[in-house]
Amino acid sequence: MSTRSEQSAVTVLGLGPMGRALAGAFLDAGLRTTVWNRTPGRDRELVERGAVGARSVEEAVAASALTVICVVNYDAADAIVRRDAVTDALKGRTLVNLTADTPDRARDTAAWAAGHGIRYLDGAIMTPTTTIGTPDAVFIHSGPEELYREHRPVLDALGGTHTHLGEEIGRAAAYDIALLDIFWTAMAGYAHALAVARAEGVTARELAPFAQGIGAILPPIFEGLAEEVDSGSFSGDGNPITSAVSSMAHIVHTSEAHGIDAGVMRAAEGMARRVIGLGHGTDGFIRVAEVLGRR
Amino acid sequence: MSTRSEQSAVTVLGLGPMGRALAGAFLDAGLRTTVWNRTPGRDRELVERGAVGARSVEEAVAASALTVICVVNYDAADAIVRRDAVTDALKGRTLVNLTADTPDRARDTAAWAAGHGIRYLDGAIMTPTTTIGTPDAVFIHSGPEELYREHRPVLDALGGTHTHLGEEIGRAAAYDIALLDIFWTAMAGYAHALAVARAEGVTARELAPFAQGIGAILPPIFEGLAEEVDSGSFSGDGNPITSAVSSMAHIVHTSEAHGIDAGVMRAAEGMARRVIGLGHGTDGFIRVAEVLGRR
Ligand SMILES: NC(=O)c1ccc[n+]([C@@H]2O[C@H](COP(=O)([O-])OP(=O)(O)OC[C@H]3O[C@@H](n4cnc5c(N)ncnc54)[C@H](OP(=O)(O)O)[C@@H]3O)[C@@H](O)[C@H]2O)c1
Ligand SMILES: NC(=O)c1ccc[n+]([C@@H]2O[C@H](COP(=O)([O-])OP(=O)(O)OC[C@H]3O[C@@H](n4cnc5c(N)ncnc54)[C@H](OP(=O)(O)O)[C@@H]3O)[C@@H](O)[C@H]2O)c1
Repeated sequence: MSTRSEQSAVTVLGLGPMGRALAGAFLDAGLRTTVWNRTPGRDRELVERGAVGARSVEEAVAASALTVICVVNYDAADAIVRRDAVTDALKGRTLVNLTADTPDRARDTAAWAAGHGIRYLDGAIMTPTTTIGTPDAVFIHSGPEELYREHRPVLDALGGTHTHLGEEIGRAAAYDIALLDIFWTAMAGYAHALAVARAEGVTARELAPFAQGIGAILPPIFEGLAEEVDSGSFSGDGNPITSAVSSMAHIVHTSEAHGIDAGVMRAAEGMARRVIGLGHGTDGFIRVAEVLGRR
Repeated sequence: MSTRSEQSAVTVLGLGPMGRALAGAFLDAGLRTTVWNRTPGRDRELVERGAVGARSVEEAVAASALTVICVVNYDAADAIVRRDAVTDALKGRTLVNLTADTPDRARDTAAWAAGHGIRYLDGAIMTPTTTIGTPDAVFIHSGPEELYREHRPVLDALGGTHTHLGEEIGRAAAYDIALLDIFWTAMAGYAHALAVARAEGVTARELAPFAQGIGAILPPIFEGLAEEVDSGSFSGDGNPITSAVSSMAHIVHTSEAHGIDAGVMRAAEGMARRVIGLGHGTDGFIRVAEVLGRR
């Protein structure tokens, strides 16, 4: 269905910050890169660097054996690709969806693709735009392994590490959801901490080196707790959840004394108090993971 | 008030996981270490290693020029030290409070100490018990700088880095609150992510390497955002808050579809939506810090 020149070509649909970074990395790798975005003009810089600016989605996908789509969510992705002209043009070609959404949406899109003879891979990007094209980028993928292998050389142009998580199409999105859960919750904590610090006369720059220190202790803690959770042991020997909840109450108190909403910490404290109420007060905080998952 | 032998001696009040770690590090450093805990028996291992187990708080504090207290919160600390016999024994000596609580409680305790001729430093410990006595430990302190300098040699026996944040006694607690805010919010995100991952058939061990990757990108992000917040610029060029909120909604949806409470993320999403509602949709997520702090 695709010619030789289409094999060393790639199409990028969606030119938000991430789509532009992806297209830029493909260009840097010397691939013939065709781009399209709903709102015109977003391709200007890319076209100056050698990208082909397509006038329509169907024209864009017809230019390459592989199309990467990266827009805000699957509603947006559907609005772009689920039109007859585009579906026809994609037939026999590969669509890699690097848009973030839920596992269910990935499964639904795979079913749509299968029904239209479109080869489909789902994926997610776990690092900021600045990492794209560098060794720091992290990509996860799921779907048919053979298809993944076939397009891996082009995907490698994006730099970083690529991991195929399995054939089940929803798997990349499941990891993505869990990882974004960690990321955005931590970011909410940081934003709130900066507001409370400022109210206490501490600037963000003053707090930052210590905040970085807190960030640095998280990876080994995550690693250790993962084993506890899988094995069903939740030792509070080093730090019981009763101690954690005491700190959480101090945070809520200090925040609200300054008139700063503490809804996120109130919700976190509520989870911890529920765990204590269920009789797990001597366990570590991570017991929350097990209690949350109970049906 | 104190003899020469008391100068190379230290007392630890409170033998929870952290108090035991502190006392253990003092012992390892060869200091004459006296310990006390409300519930008897917690000093057994320390006494076997050479610590002196005091029969009362007043006996414990009389044994050393410097007493370190580290209990669950200031209610507990007050219950231990704010009794006449103890107050009398502490007169002219130094109390370092490494218990976590609010800046207000630190200020209140400093006023009490001043009223009773007790020399007072406040501090906090930013790393887990396993770091105590190692280079990875992080301690922050506030209060009279001269007093801090005088006791720094003994405090150094705890290992790690010690930072004096200023004379204002509430400062260490203010940093502590902000840093624990980041830590416990991130931990709440991790616990929730593990529950959602498990519901999607992904084990904690499978998620852990990627979770560690998310942890690893936080420190440089914290650093970059600190500058934006202090300067009042909140650029969403790389990742607008409208994109963040879309991911947050996916997390809530996936979580609740599995019957898993998403209260923390709902609260975080609410903050972000409020920021968008106020007209800052093209800004980055960190605009939340500024909006939260508005009076
Ligand atoms: N930025 C990051 O650091 C980062 C990191 C990892 C993953 N991601 C993921 O990458 C994806 C893209 O993110 P982004 O940073 O580029 O910004 P974004 O704001 O999430 O997405 C912007 C893109 O979505 C398009 N779009 C929105 N609604 C649309 C609709 N109804 N129809 C067609 N197109 C629509 C925009 O087109 P218009 O220009 O026409 O509005 C633009 O191309 C998201 O899923 C995000 O979660 C981003
Ligand atoms: N563990 C960590 O990883 C860690 C890290 C950084 C900072 N911290 C901070 O260090 C402090 C101590 O923490 P921890 O880990 O040792 O455990 P904790 O559970 O916070 O504190 C336990 C200690 O508090 C005492 N206590 C509780 N209520 C009391 C009361 N009403 N009267 C007298 N004593 C009372 C306990 O005595 P009994 O044995 O009699 O109950 C025990 O000595 C906390 O402020 C914590 O936030 C801990």
